[in-house]
Amino acid sequence: MTPDTSLEKTSQSTDGGDDCPLRWFDADLGAFESLERLIAEHPADFFAGKSFEPVGACHTREAVFASVELPETPTSPQAHADHLLHDVFRHVMPVASPTFVGHMTSSLPSFMPSLAKVVAALNQNVVKLETSGALTGLERQVVGMLHKLVFSQDSAFYGKWLHDADHALGAICSGGTVANLTALWASRNKLLGARDGFAGIHRAGMVAALRHYGYDGLAIVVSERGHYSLGKAADVLGIGRDNLVPVEVDSEGRMRIDLLRDTMRDLQQRNIRPMAIVGIAGTTETGSVDPLDAIADIAQEAGCHFHVDAAWGGATLLSERERWRFAGIERADSVVIDAHKQFYVPMGAGMVLFRSPAWTQEIIQHANYIVRKGSVDLGRHTLEGSRGAAAVMLYANLHLLGRKGLAQLIDRSIDNAHYFASLIAQQPDFELVSHPQLCLLTYRYLPETVRAALATASEDKREKILDALDTLTISIQEMQRDAGRSFVSRTQLTSTQFAGRPIAVFRVVLANPDTTHAILQDILDEQRMLAAASPCMAALMALVEASGRLQR
Amino acid sequence: MTPDTSLEKTSQSTDGGDDCPLRWFDADLGAFESLERLIAEHPADFFAGKSFEPVGACHTREAVFASVELPETPTSPQAHADHLLHDVFRHVMPVASPTFVGHMTSSLPSFMPSLAKVVAALNQNVVKLETSGALTGLERQVVGMLHKLVFSQDSAFYGKWLHDADHALGAICSGGTVANLTALWASRNKLLGARDGFAGIHRAGMVAALRHYGYDGLAIVVSERGHYSLGKAADVLGIGRDNLVPVEVDSEGRMRIDLLRDTMRDLQQRNIRPMAIVGIAGTTETGSVDPLDAIADIAQEAGCHFHVDAAWGGATLLSERERWRFAGIERADSVVIDAHKQFYVPMGAGMVLFRSPAWTQEIIQHANYIVRKGSVDLGRHTLEGSRGAAAVMLYANLHLLGRKGLAQLIDRSIDNAHYFASLIAQQPDFELVSHPQLCLLTYRYLPETVRAALATASEDKREKILDALDTLTISIQEMQRDAGRSFVSRTQLTSTQFAGRPIAVFRVVLANPDTTHAILQDILDEQRMLAAASPCMAALMALVEASGRLQR
Repeated sequence: MTPDTSLEKTSQSTDGGDDCPLRWFDADLGAFESLERLIAEHPADFFAGKSFEPVGACHTREAVFASVELPETPTSPQAHADHLLHDVFRHVMPVASPTFVGHMTSSLPSFMPSLAKVVAALNQNVVKLETSGALTGLERQVVGMLHKLVFSQDSAFYGKWLHDADHALGAICSGGTVANLTALWASRNKLLGARDGFAGIHRAGMVAALRHYGYDGLAIVVSERGHYSLGKAADVLGIGRDNLVPVEVDSEGRMRIDLLRDTMRDLQQRNIRPMAIVGIAGTTETGSVDPLDAIADIAQEAGCHFHVDAAWGGATLLSERERWRFAGIERADSVVIDAHKQFYVPMGAGMVLFRSPAWTQEIIQHANYIVRKGSVDLGRHTLEGSRGAAAVMLYANLHLLGRKGLAQLIDRSIDNAHYFASLIAQQPDFELVSHPQLCLLTYRYLPETVRAALATASEDKREKILDALDTLTISIQEMQRDAGRSFVSRTQLTSTQFAGRPIAVFRVVLANPDTTHAILQDILDEQRMLAAASPCMAALMALVEASGRLQR
Repeated sequence: MTPDTSLEKTSQSTDGGDDCPLRWFDADLGAFESLERLIAEHPADFFAGKSFEPVGACHTREAVFASVELPETPTSPQAHADHLLHDVFRHVMPVASPTFVGHMTSSLPSFMPSLAKVVAALNQNVVKLETSGALTGLERQVVGMLHKLVFSQDSAFYGKWLHDADHALGAICSGGTVANLTALWASRNKLLGARDGFAGIHRAGMVAALRHYGYDGLAIVVSERGHYSLGKAADVLGIGRDNLVPVEVDSEGRMRIDLLRDTMRDLQQRNIRPMAIVGIAGTTETGSVDPLDAIADIAQEAGCHFHVDAAWGGATLLSERERWRFAGIERADSVVIDAHKQFYVPMGAGMVLFRSPAWTQEIIQHANYIVRKGSVDLGRHTLEGSRGAAAVMLYANLHLLGRKGLAQLIDRSIDNAHYFASLIAQQPDFELVSHPQLCLLTYRYLPETVRAALATASEDKREKILDALDTLTISIQEMQRDAGRSFVSRTQLTSTQFAGRPIAVFRVVLANPDTTHAILQDILDEQRMLAAASPCMAALMALVEASGRLQR
């Protein structure tokens, strides 16, 4: 098995026949070009086509994807392109369709697929200058632009830090989860850094760090509506999910500042160090924006990291009309924004921004063959290593749409949400559950008889009716999804009306600029029809009737 | 500032003029189609073109990317496409060029950019079925195929687990760093899981976990050639970088099993629990493969997680000829493989595989609006949240190249490395530093006079000569990089010849199937010429001459 290193033995034959793998590096592209024309030029047309069949109707298609045998020999490009079209792409979810208003990803600017093709062909790795060239500078600039949007530092600040090799103003990463984790990682490492002979948590680990600093534990404080990625971060960072402390929200889904104060006091009494308070600028479920300025005050008093999860809402800062909702975000130590949400960039591109470049010193690293000390390599300041050039897509949108264009998309989405909220409020058989702050809202189907019964029923009966109502909501949502014409998502919220009881609701995200008022009217009509057709409706009505009889 | 919710106020005008952002969702694509033709159809031709100027010659181009002002109004597609071409894409690194043999990413199959365009247009988010449809099943199948390649379980195993909602055989993620972190996160959580009234580290955190289990600390054991992402993982997970315990390598760059035994004994005596032993299947610096079977024995004896970082080498399992090097990998608890390396998929796509689906139970999670309990949503078992459909690219390569085609690429790359090693060994003025096991090797420029002087010089003189030699190596590498015709990377290795002294070396990765023998010959010729032209050469020669005079 010793390798034969003689030159003769290993001489090359680069022009093989059918067996030569090289030919696949220069295959006939006709089949794939057809796919491009059919799908990538007008995705919405593809989704609206007759042959398109979203997965609601066919679930995971396990039978198609059942084999674990590697294909031994090559499939022809035409055969594989046909397979991809018929068995895969025809059965994805039409997230770009204007009738699919339940997702945070919607349609993209028309030039995006072209740009993605070019970026894939260049195949740059932005972890280091050596494999990314000019893209290193470009990414730093994009991060700087977003930093300025959030923190509005002066030109001296950006002149000094934008291209400083040993610091970064933030990083682009695969999504909000990695971005939140990066911010909280830096926060943890700064709080428990090297000091008084202690090597720092990054070297010595959590146990030694808490012993040195004399804390019994760490906590991350966030509203009960915090994204589930924060629980993951608490787990991964060794803090523990039980130490992600939830604070109740008010009727608008915003963190209650009085309860935050109570929480901070309680933690202090238990010698648990609050490592970070997280404000949410656009909750995933209702789009609520926490009172960031008030949270900043409390974080400042406590000498605690103030992190803002603006993964969804961050792009709203572009809108002169709506920016006021985020007052206080400029006081955050770190902010997370997703580019693949309201910046209309393809999956997956998130971003973490640090107000002070000093934060990235807490997570800096190097290696001999990469991200060397003193280099401008982006990988010195990131949780991820090798990464693609998602920054180019964000850069293109910032230029081709401009701040004004993006702001119009934001404003229009919020207008659409207000329109839909009004429309729901006018229906006798629907209930608006959360008013839109951004372009999200929640509601449910609630016929007048049920509403009346809930108001008068005994507690026991009311519980049963609420259970049946939840079942109906879930049933309508699933029937609509499976019909495949439109899509509304659902979630569970704690009801302020019924003493914190969880209730199932429809959830709508109005980010697609092609979603019209007529589409929104149709969605309610369809839900009303599905409700009537649902077997859960009869069960609910029987309960309501029984409750009514008892009242009489 | 109260939102106006009247229907009249928010009525839409979708057909705006120049100001309407919608037009950018349907912009004229001519400019971007030109970019596609120029770059994406034949990237190697684009890189070989006269106007192409790799960044070596112009560094980070900070002046181009200096402004942090957001563009206020839209730029025209033509103007932006021109800017991207002239200021960005012409100055990236030509990683697909066959003369650039220093990177782990090289060229891609010709259909890849087309497929990337389609995937971007579909813009699916594989975190959940609702936003990915058939791609959920496809990703599970791809993970299963790779799982079988590594672990070769029987059909009953895959029949049971491949599409099981509550388990996963692994996950696709943004790259090897996240993949390694995911594996070690699961390992940590399993070791310190819920037991005897303890809630588990995932809920209670590191301090409570070590207290409950009675350990003074945790350690991750890996060879000194471990990838820098493992240090990051030790930091993030709260274990601490100092507890990533390095084991010295033998002259072939493989972990020394005798020293591993010593390390394990030492940790036990200090009541430090070895959480995982990491074997490397293809080190980043020399492509060395650790003795995986022997490591598996020790991990088994110690009841310790055995993780294999095969980010680079994993694809070698496809080669019937070379697979023997990885004997023992099938005994690993977890394995990491990068798809964007020798699976020839665009950046960034990594993968973690767990031998037993039980491992993913350690990191499972859910939320109300996503990844619900019982759902098949992929996001229940991943560190990342929202993700793109990189699995499609890997799926296409597995089909269009087939196992045989990919294996030919692997074999050919290793043949090329053996050819280059022989070529270097035949040169009087070069020294092969590490023999290729996979398609990586390291070497340096070492004229005969310097070689002779090193053999006879006093220790003090030898140190000085070695320093000057390192400086020359770095100088040649940087001059070659800046000239922009070809690229070889460099790293620093501990020399076995000079008692563990670090030495600078050239590092070559021969993964591009278009790299010919003639190109490799040219690379040595160019380096020889650059050495002669380097100012560091004169300094080295003066030292050698002085040393010679002393000898006489």
